[in-house]
Amino acid sequence: MQTTNILSHADKYAEEIVTIRRDFHKYAEAAWREFRTTSKIIQRLQKEKIEVKFGLDVVNPDYVWSYPKEDELKEHMERAVGQGASAELVEKMQGYTGAVAIIDSGKAGPTIALRFDIDCNDVLENSNNDHRPHREGFASVNKGFAHACAHDGHAAMGLITALVLNEVKDRLRGKVKIIFQLGEEGDKGAQSMVERGVVDDVDYLIATHVGADKKGVKHTLYASVAGLFSTTKFDIKIKGKNAHAGARPEKGNNAILAAAASIMMMNSFLQDSNGQTRLNVGTIQGGTGRNVIPGECFFRMETRGQTTEAEQRLYKAALESVASACKVYGCTFETEKMGFAPSAEADPELVKYIMDGCANVPELGAIKEALINTGGTDDITLMMQRVQEKGGKASYMFIGTEQYGDAHNGDFDFNEDVLIAGVKCNLAAVCHLMEK
Amino acid sequence: MQTTNILSHADKYAEEIVTIRRDFHKYAEAAWREFRTTSKIIQRLQKEKIEVKFGLDVVNPDYVWSYPKEDELKEHMERAVGQGASAELVEKMQGYTGAVAIIDSGKAGPTIALRFDIDCNDVLENSNNDHRPHREGFASVNKGFAHACAHDGHAAMGLITALVLNEVKDRLRGKVKIIFQLGEEGDKGAQSMVERGVVDDVDYLIATHVGADKKGVKHTLYASVAGLFSTTKFDIKIKGKNAHAGARPEKGNNAILAAAASIMMMNSFLQDSNGQTRLNVGTIQGGTGRNVIPGECFFRMETRGQTTEAEQRLYKAALESVASACKVYGCTFETEKMGFAPSAEADPELVKYIMDGCANVPELGAIKEALINTGGTDDITLMMQRVQEKGGKASYMFIGTEQYGDAHNGDFDFNEDVLIAGVKCNLAAVCHLMEK
Amino acid sequence: MQTTNILSHADKYAEEIVTIRRDFHKYAEAAWREFRTTSKIIQRLQKEKIEVKFGLDVVNPDYVWSYPKEDELKEHMERAVGQGASAELVEKMQGYTGAVAIIDSGKAGPTIALRFDIDCNDVLENSNNDHRPHREGFASVNKGFAHACAHDGHAAMGLITALVLNEVKDRLRGKVKIIFQLGEEGDKGAQSMVERGVVDDVDYLIATHVGADKKGVKHTLYASVAGLFSTTKFDIKIKGKNAHAGARPEKGNNAILAAAASIMMMNSFLQDSNGQTRLNVGTIQGGTGRNVIPGECFFRMETRGQTTEAEQRLYKAALESVASACKVYGCTFETEKMGFAPSAEADPELVKYIMDGCANVPELGAIKEALINTGGTDDITLMMQRVQEKGGKASYMFIGTEQYGDAHNGDFDFNEDVLIAGVKCNLAAVCHLMEK
Amino acid sequence: MQTTNILSHADKYAEEIVTIRRDFHKYAEAAWREFRTTSKIIQRLQKEKIEVKFGLDVVNPDYVWSYPKEDELKEHMERAVGQGASAELVEKMQGYTGAVAIIDSGKAGPTIALRFDIDCNDVLENSNNDHRPHREGFASVNKGFAHACAHDGHAAMGLITALVLNEVKDRLRGKVKIIFQLGEEGDKGAQSMVERGVVDDVDYLIATHVGADKKGVKHTLYASVAGLFSTTKFDIKIKGKNAHAGARPEKGNNAILAAAASIMMMNSFLQDSNGQTRLNVGTIQGGTGRNVIPGECFFRMETRGQTTEAEQRLYKAALESVASACKVYGCTFETEKMGFAPSAEADPELVKYIMDGCANVPELGAIKEALINTGGTDDITLMMQRVQEKGGKASYMFIGTEQYGDAHNGDFDFNEDVLIAGVKCNLAAVCHLMEK
Repeated sequence: MQTTNILSHADKYAEEIVTIRRDFHKYAEAAWREFRTTSKIIQRLQKEKIEVKFGLDVVNPDYVWSYPKEDELKEHMERAVGQGASAELVEKMQGYTGAVAIIDSGKAGPTIALRFDIDCNDVLENSNNDHRPHREGFASVNKGFAHACAHDGHAAMGLITALVLNEVKDRLRGKVKIIFQLGEEGDKGAQSMVERGVVDDVDYLIATHVGADKKGVKHTLYASVAGLFSTTKFDIKIKGKNAHAGARPEKGNNAILAAAASIMMMNSFLQDSNGQTRLNVGTIQGGTGRNVIPGECFFRMETRGQTTEAEQRLYKAALESVASACKVYGCTFETEKMGFAPSAEADPELVKYIMDGCANVPELGAIKEALINTGGTDDITLMMQRVQEKGGKASYMFIGTEQYGDAHNGDFDFNEDVLIAGVKCNLAAVCHLMEK
Repeated sequence: MQTTNILSHADKYAEEIVTIRRDFHKYAEAAWREFRTTSKIIQRLQKEKIEVKFGLDVVNPDYVWSYPKEDELKEHMERAVGQGASAELVEKMQGYTGAVAIIDSGKAGPTIALRFDIDCNDVLENSNNDHRPHREGFASVNKGFAHACAHDGHAAMGLITALVLNEVKDRLRGKVKIIFQLGEEGDKGAQSMVERGVVDDVDYLIATHVGADKKGVKHTLYASVAGLFSTTKFDIKIKGKNAHAGARPEKGNNAILAAAASIMMMNSFLQDSNGQTRLNVGTIQGGTGRNVIPGECFFRMETRGQTTEAEQRLYKAALESVASACKVYGCTFETEKMGFAPSAEADPELVKYIMDGCANVPELGAIKEALINTGGTDDITLMMQRVQEKGGKASYMFIGTEQYGDAHNGDFDFNEDVLIAGVKCNLAAVCHLMEK
Repeated sequence: MQTTNILSHADKYAEEIVTIRRDFHKYAEAAWREFRTTSKIIQRLQKEKIEVKFGLDVVNPDYVWSYPKEDELKEHMERAVGQGASAELVEKMQGYTGAVAIIDSGKAGPTIALRFDIDCNDVLENSNNDHRPHREGFASVNKGFAHACAHDGHAAMGLITALVLNEVKDRLRGKVKIIFQLGEEGDKGAQSMVERGVVDDVDYLIATHVGADKKGVKHTLYASVAGLFSTTKFDIKIKGKNAHAGARPEKGNNAILAAAASIMMMNSFLQDSNGQTRLNVGTIQGGTGRNVIPGECFFRMETRGQTTEAEQRLYKAALESVASACKVYGCTFETEKMGFAPSAEADPELVKYIMDGCANVPELGAIKEALINTGGTDDITLMMQRVQEKGGKASYMFIGTEQYGDAHNGDFDFNEDVLIAGVKCNLAAVCHLMEK
Repeated sequence: MQTTNILSHADKYAEEIVTIRRDFHKYAEAAWREFRTTSKIIQRLQKEKIEVKFGLDVVNPDYVWSYPKEDELKEHMERAVGQGASAELVEKMQGYTGAVAIIDSGKAGPTIALRFDIDCNDVLENSNNDHRPHREGFASVNKGFAHACAHDGHAAMGLITALVLNEVKDRLRGKVKIIFQLGEEGDKGAQSMVERGVVDDVDYLIATHVGADKKGVKHTLYASVAGLFSTTKFDIKIKGKNAHAGARPEKGNNAILAAAASIMMMNSFLQDSNGQTRLNVGTIQGGTGRNVIPGECFFRMETRGQTTEAEQRLYKAALESVASACKVYGCTFETEKMGFAPSAEADPELVKYIMDGCANVPELGAIKEALINTGGTDDITLMMQRVQEKGGKASYMFIGTEQYGDAHNGDFDFNEDVLIAGVKCNLAAVCHLMEK
């Protein structure tokens, strides 16, 4: 294969990729709700006659976390159609977003999966003129939802990568699966795709993320992210009993005290020689009135760890802290798992292939082996784990670029030049792997 | 004076007092918002040419707790007018509800104040047919506000007591002030009337509350409430700093942890040989997202004590707990006092007068010296304290009756027979005091 | 009976009672270890041929709290003999101190029990010349043990009371039991006597305590102590697992953290409408080295309550706090009950008899119905409860006197004039009860 | 230089090095108390006319942590002399142990320092026959003190290294300083030597530690220890006020509650993206009696961190937790720093020299770049830091061997074959550095 020739195919999409990214940005959709985004992806792929699977073909509904209530979902479907999604496609999705495009060369060769996430954040986008999306009219019209982690760009990259690979299909070997993953934020969605078997046949899995390089350098490729943390996202709902705080305080079962005691206890489990850990009770809400012993308290929390072992130990200690504090205060509790991702490490052999392959990408200023991650999570690790368990190899590329504002904030934006660079990195890695 | 004759004057109001109580019940208004109730009281008094003071004449705006924001207040004024308040009177109130009727005999004699509170609770009234107010069409039309502590009855009693006293004015000595107190719930309103001097000239202060007798007996008069607790109502707003919970947890200042630690600490200050104490963090709300170190946490709380000394010690310990926990977690905090009432004890001499005077009330089944209170509060204690400081005497009568549902609950109601009985107890006490 | 005549019999013991008290003071013995004191009491009683029971006749060894280890006990027996106890009597005690003298008139009449406690405190007595026992040579020679709660005086009073009653036996009716109770400090000993049936036949039980009157007035008799608190004394031993604090912190089970968390939690159970409560973790000891996750922690604690119900609720909450915190930190725990006394109230009828009878005691300056207790405990309540359960009546007299230093402190002392006064109060009460 | 020849000089000391190690083992001495060990070292060096400095020449008394009280020190000096130390040398030490031998070639060249620590642990040595030191009669005769971290071996190695270097002095360039460091356990002693300038002139600093290799392999040289943690050792003494727990609990200032609250709070500061951290409250002791609000509480604690930055943040948070909890409970506190070591990293260039040089050591089975440390600390880092600040280079070698029992436990022992291997590693490194 002539990788360089193939890469240059991407250049003609330089304008379209920006248009697509901005369209996704404007109609930002959060986890499990990406009906319009998915519809647009499918339509563009089908226009080129690219095989695409979606709905229950790519998601196993028995393995979903944080899945919305029916009413809310219906509302989002209707909004999506109102904003240009195909009503027919949305119906066919049967409530599950995400899609997988398949470029099959028909020839023997490896199966390579490329992962691109497509959901936005629960963030209110900035509406001042310092913020380009607002200034140039592509800021999110869905209030409270915004692409503040570049998944709009990832989705656009995935689409253009599929188009290019489709153009050069006869020059490829094996098969490429472009995974448009739903619900990466909160580590909710990957599991449902993994449990449908989406990566069970995959020899090489490569995921892509763009973001600010520490030194502000443009377009450095990190061929892997080292030290992806394990994480569990979960909710706790403590149920006690109200009582008059003056007249009969001893008749109450104080859910806020149970929460406070459990929060103090769980925070004392953070030291572990198996790696750094994190614990956060991010939100809390409880009680009904000042003079009523509070009979309920709800909190959203998460644990993280450099190793799954350390993280799971902390997760269990947090649950035990809640269970025991509830026992002390005569309360009961319910917990719901809202997301999970294990820790994972890239396979050095694949990292090397990526580095070698990407040497051909002219947009890159530097190529490095690994970005050292501290504390971040991505449920791509569930896919990596499955691929590695089945004998395949996986890595998670990070492409440094100019970034404006912090990730997960209303003023986030990035230099769109990285989009074509990202497409080319994926193409280069695929070509090099097929050549081997 | 012939007390018995005077008492019988009340009987002709038996129907009107129920009508008034149900009207107040239907248009329930919470603390600082009793514009319609106040307007109706003033109008009825003025119809009989009874002197009545209100607005800034009875409230000192420099001493208000939990006073609503301007917008909200305006909304309530408009609602009140829409529900039948006099627009002219509401305007004259200048934002402050409550009223004081004055029945001046013109003859030498004691000044006696009778206190009736008029505000409702922040409670959603029941809407099933087991609940008489709903069944008979006088349930609250103001959603989320309901008379669940009989203040509708108290207000009606005060009004009829004023009418009767006015009828027999020439037979009286001295002066009677009927205080229609705003905002008793949450111990918010009495201070503003005390600091306007409403009770500065009072020789005898008698307050009235109706409620369930422990033994279910109907119409027992307790000539005093013993052991009224001191209380402080206050809010705490902790301000920390958000940070990414995975990437840079140490950059955050965790307001939920500061809250949890302070709550645990303040709860360890409840033993005091100066009397029983109570502490309650009734509601809590904090944080913005699961994966963000929470930068703010807000809670509503209260302290109570058998003695003001014990309560104030606890209140200070609670504030110090918050201040110190905030220091540990690098947070700051603001606190706002939302209500206060000291502890107070009735004067035995006045209690005896009430008992003797009420021996003439035919509706009473029994007369007792004192109801032993545990944990309850009423900011009438601020008025009692002021009267006692000035050399006067004070007591708080409790009239037992049949009660349905618990106080401060959506299904609260009571047997309206107690209304005329309550009027007569006030009349009997006034007459007996004037005779002495 | 001529009470006054009988009272005057006490006067001739004015010198001996001081001698006895100082002897007991000098050889102070703590709970379960009062071998010498018991021996001296028995010897003096037997010298007058007064019937006296002791050892397993007055103590049920199945109901002992905080009973010392065998070695320690033996040491104390030997010390006692070395300090003048009868070796023969000590052997007959079979390890259990305390005694009951019986003055049986042989005539029909009530059985009256008088309780005097005899143990000292675990306190180091002052050794400066401001402290009379030191100055006058009767300070404790048993280091770390001192009579700092007047039980030396109580024991002397009981002895002289027995001698006087014995002298006038033919003038009495019924029977008097003088109970020399072991181990009152820490509420340890009464149970063992109650469970041997010592008060099962008692119609009237009167206990005596001397102490400072609040107003410093000398010799006021309070015919009862109102509001004796319930209490449980108990130890907690938490067992975790040591681990290297740097290398493998997660391998440890941190007993100090389990203790800290449980202490914070148990302190949040102090509000109860059933009465005031108290909780104290009085001592704590844990861990082995700075850099070792501590695998053990031990603490001594107690709960108290105005009512047994409130106290027992708190006691259970404390145990549950420990149990649950241990579960969180992977620890186990053991608890041992070291003492217990319920709350108890005097019988008004008996209180009246005591007041009337003691009107004849010339040494008294005033006679009052009740001393209001706040927070104090005495396991006389176990005896009171048993007597009351069996249909008898009980009270606990308090005789105010001049006091130097605080109770339970090394500088405690009192005006010995109260001793004969106390004897006479007991005699007067007995005589009046027999006259009725 | 012919490194190999020089190394072979060590072989003749194979017997003596074991004898010395066992002698130090038998007369184990803890930090600041190593009078006999120091005396023996000095005597052996002086026998060979090797220059040796000690006492105030190598220790700055203004920079000592955990220094014992005078009485205790005197006792240890006397014990040391009784166990064979030179009384004259002990006196010359002026209270400060440790020594520095100097082998000066007189020729130009680098100054190389080799550090060997000499203190034992506060550990009770096993006395059963499974434990070789006991079986073979060299177990510690100083009860409660035992070499359970191989410093006896390190001291012996240092001594023999000095002897060999002295023998071949004329073949050397530059200067070698053999530092016999006092008080490494608890990170107490290095500071006092650093602040006397002991390493101020050093170009290369190499420290040695022996211990179990993870894989059980014998004699692997790790040319550096990566990730030495920073640590602070400190004591906290909380002072409150006693009060009767029943009668006047509110009069007390509860030091145990202050301790419990501060312990819970400080344990919530363990997550830090600057590296892993550790916190341990290793021992606690507080209170005087069960029924006394505890007026004092003392605890020994430490913090650790992968980076000094993370550790110091935690240390400050711990102090602030104590300060703030004391404020809440009306207590005061004192804190004393008992030891400190920063984190430190080896210089790669020196690591390479060590690896290359040690290639000549026949006893080694493998040579690796770094042992990854997790959680361990050694105040050698203070020396490393000083050397690096002055432009020198430093590393900390770890020599894996067969180990019996865990470090810091009473059954610790190791295969003494490592002793000569360790001497040769030091010699090889020195020679290679001088050759460069």
